[in-house]
Amino acid sequence: MSPPPDARLLLFSNSSNWGEPYLAHARPELLRFLGGPARLLFIPYAGVRWSYDAYADAVQEALGDDGHTVIPLHRASDPAAAIADTAMDASAIVIGGGNSFRLLQMLQQHALLAPIRARVRAGVSYVGWSAGSNVACPSIRTTNDMPIVMPESFDALGLVRFQVNAHYTDARLPRHRGESRAERLQEFCTLSPEVPVIALREGSALEVRGSAVTLLGSRRARLFHGGAPPRQLTPGPLALEA
Amino acid sequence: MSPPPDARLLLFSNSSNWGEPYLAHARPELLRFLGGPARLLFIPYAGVRWSYDAYADAVQEALGDDGHTVIPLHRASDPAAAIADTAMDASAIVIGGGNSFRLLQMLQQHALLAPIRARVRAGVSYVGWSAGSNVACPSIRTTNDMPIVMPESFDALGLVRFQVNAHYTDARLPRHRGESRAERLQEFCTLSPEVPVIALREGSALEVRGSAVTLLGSRRARLFHGGAPPRQLTPGPLALEA
Repeated sequence: MSPPPDARLLLFSNSSNWGEPYLAHARPELLRFLGGPARLLFIPYAGVRWSYDAYADAVQEALGDDGHTVIPLHRASDPAAAIADTAMDASAIVIGGGNSFRLLQMLQQHALLAPIRARVRAGVSYVGWSAGSNVACPSIRTTNDMPIVMPESFDALGLVRFQVNAHYTDARLPRHRGESRAERLQEFCTLSPEVPVIALREGSALEVRGSAVTLLGSRRARLFHGGAPPRQLTPGPLALEA
Repeated sequence: MSPPPDARLLLFSNSSNWGEPYLAHARPELLRFLGGPARLLFIPYAGVRWSYDAYADAVQEALGDDGHTVIPLHRASDPAAAIADTAMDASAIVIGGGNSFRLLQMLQQHALLAPIRARVRAGVSYVGWSAGSNVACPSIRTTNDMPIVMPESFDALGLVRFQVNAHYTDARLPRHRGESRAERLQEFCTLSPEVPVIALREGSALEVRGSAVTLLGSRRARLFHGGAPPRQLTPGPLALEA
């Protein structure tokens, strides 16, 4: 599966930073990325413990001050057709966080993967955070989420060639023996040495324009790839191998 | 899938406690559970970043001082037949920790689920830690592991009627917005309200004899079940609804 050559994506590690309002750190980057207030087709299917309506309302509330209009996809009578026809006249498809397994299962059940891919290929921007960033990748095999449901496949949108690990941290719980995040990602790289993983710390994002990838935010990211030692990535344009 | 009525299981949350040698806290419980030195059929398939030989050697080294003999299943020419025929004359099947997705995939690929179930039904004891405890449950849907590979199904051995969450902790990383363990388990309970989850803190274990379940160790466990508030479980015999 080849990613669209001119896709435009904005992939956030997380929706909110510690102690900040919902989506606060994302708003300026989003406004700049979109070039102004925009119609956003919002997909809430990663939400598990709150209703899709409540989720869409929270996003509208957070982004409304910037002039954006949030159009919740779950209210469409035929979500796949709604995306395939006009993407509801949105300039961006936005997928929020929650549980990546549930999100991918719902995208599969509603047959949304192909129409989303087609729309992004046709120039609609893609914005995701957390689980929404995971499903932009070739698969969800680097999610941190619990596998509460089984999707048909772990294959996801494949809008980029690399995997993202959201909410990345080097921190470990004191006196706890569960695997560290880095150890989990090294397990992935052991079995899939051909797939690079960009581990995004909270507050960070990736801006993708075709094959150009830029790390946004003030923190460094970490690149895991095969058996090579993890490499630090500095904010700015990234030199990723093709 | 009904669990065996007289199954004997010992399910550890983790292999080692912080600052202790490998399997140190598990050894006395294991020796008591087995009634003395025993032949242990060891299944190393959860290991990803180390070889099966190295894994089996580490377990033999840790348990050898108690007189146990570790028989590594991966060295059998036909692992399924080895279990189905005689379980290699072992009195317990032992599955170690690592990655639950990889472990379950390997158990499926080697067609081991049915023969292990049959052996445990026929009186062979089952011992697991971490991923090895996860696969004793109806499914691996409460694992903490990263989904680095996709098994055919998340359905596991079903030797007990409840799910285990291993390495359970209430602790959160400071200033980090990723979901807490409790939030992840509540997501599971939202979509699977009929399935109880016993969240085992590190150092804890469950001893199962048929329908009788005892919490071992000094720490309380936590029961997540449907929409009810999580409930503390005190070490000793547990009153679980059937």
